[in-house]
Amino acid sequence: MHPKIRTRDVFYISDGTAITCQTVGHAVLAQFPLKVNEQTFPFTENGHKVAEVIKELERSFLATGEKPLVFFSMVVPEIKQQLLSANALFYDVLQTMVNFVADDLQLEPKPQLQRSHSVGKDQDGYFDRIAAIEYTLSHDDGISLRGLEDADLILLGVSRSGKTPTSLYMAMQFGLRVVNYPFIAEDLAKLRLLPEFEIHRHKLFGLTIDPERLTEIRNNRLANSDYASESQCESELFSVESLFRREAIPYINTSSMSVEEISTRILERTGLKRRLF
Amino acid sequence: MHPKIRTRDVFYISDGTAITCQTVGHAVLAQFPLKVNEQTFPFTENGHKVAEVIKELERSFLATGEKPLVFFSMVVPEIKQQLLSANALFYDVLQTMVNFVADDLQLEPKPQLQRSHSVGKDQDGYFDRIAAIEYTLSHDDGISLRGLEDADLILLGVSRSGKTPTSLYMAMQFGLRVVNYPFIAEDLAKLRLLPEFEIHRHKLFGLTIDPERLTEIRNNRLANSDYASESQCESELFSVESLFRREAIPYINTSSMSVEEISTRILERTGLKRRLF
Repeated sequence: MHPKIRTRDVFYISDGTAITCQTVGHAVLAQFPLKVNEQTFPFTENGHKVAEVIKELERSFLATGEKPLVFFSMVVPEIKQQLLSANALFYDVLQTMVNFVADDLQLEPKPQLQRSHSVGKDQDGYFDRIAAIEYTLSHDDGISLRGLEDADLILLGVSRSGKTPTSLYMAMQFGLRVVNYPFIAEDLAKLRLLPEFEIHRHKLFGLTIDPERLTEIRNNRLANSDYASESQCESELFSVESLFRREAIPYINTSSMSVEEISTRILERTGLKRRLF
Repeated sequence: MHPKIRTRDVFYISDGTAITCQTVGHAVLAQFPLKVNEQTFPFTENGHKVAEVIKELERSFLATGEKPLVFFSMVVPEIKQQLLSANALFYDVLQTMVNFVADDLQLEPKPQLQRSHSVGKDQDGYFDRIAAIEYTLSHDDGISLRGLEDADLILLGVSRSGKTPTSLYMAMQFGLRVVNYPFIAEDLAKLRLLPEFEIHRHKLFGLTIDPERLTEIRNNRLANSDYASESQCESELFSVESLFRREAIPYINTSSMSVEEISTRILERTGLKRRLF
């Protein structure tokens, strides 16, 4: 008897943060009808730690009767060989591609431990990233409108349209300085652009959302309030979208988008470059 | 004549956010002695967009005389075939592993567009993530010590030891509710744990940093201030590390670690689970 959706144990194992293993493993597994029990083992960088991880793999195999899936990345050959001795299905998230690139470019790969997410020598990148996070924090939710000339982007939208998480994500992942400014219900009748924004028009970007979705999100915060009512949400969104169109401010509808997707769509529309860390 | 470090054009192309392509491409390229010019094309989801991307690839080939490297992920077979017709070196960041998994599990993959970073049906996960970001924002830098019972983690450390970026990253990426609390210079002589933290001892975690590094970071903020002086940094760090040891608070040194690494190390030490989005 086969249950429709099988469950498998999945391990992400790396000598670094294991973030790449997780990202890849997730994307791969999303293509299969599987339920997964996930465990992550970062910094598996010596024989002792690998031995511990192997115990977990063997425990999984004994408990489920099936080999667990392992998405891994490991630089030191001996450590890697030790890991591969366990009863599991192994997927090296980088090696195949590294081999292809080495062949294509006729270059010898030089594996480096934890290279992809370390500060390393890129001090400027580090400071830029921290500065972007600070700038964005101090310009969240209309707290301050000073220093707009340093902003890369100014996000506009009604309360709960996704401005804050999007701003922080773009600062953290792309090193961008993001201002976000909410439209307040009272202003909506006479909605117009703040004079402060006039000379920064090219940095303005609007977020909107379906009224049903906004109602749901606001109810999750303040159940059965006027603020969360369908009529309130509808009228706010109507006013704001009218403003976006009147003022030719580009905008996107964030309903059912993750912060990753919203952020990427904004980059795409504005032509802003991602900085990579 | 071969220059020591070659430069290559690199493209990240996806029908989704291209975040996975970038993550993998970066990790792969970090193993080669290459300088790269990077460009990212997300949401390349129809023939028209692929045609535009192919123009860029051909432009790169003509300008450099070398095939650009393309790390890509593409679900629709016709779109993928169209892309592969360009003059470039192609690396499919997921397909090889998808094929391995399909073979190993005897399961048919069902490619899904933009599955890995969409909100999809996981509404609870979405709300949890947003709630974690909000909680963390409202407990940044000692702003509020209310609701500590809802915290997953309480970070302690001197100013500029990495608390804020780490807290936000852990909220954003792992869905954790993180309080962070700075030690202020005046308290340092009579340094003790706030009574508010007593019943949450198991949630406490310390960040420390090398004095030279702290001096450098503080000088970047307030050059030549007392605050940034070596003696001030040394004495603050000495007091705080003494407190961590006396009170048996686990702590790590964040010097030269990225927020990804700090966050992962904290998970590892505390046993907190990452939630994945």
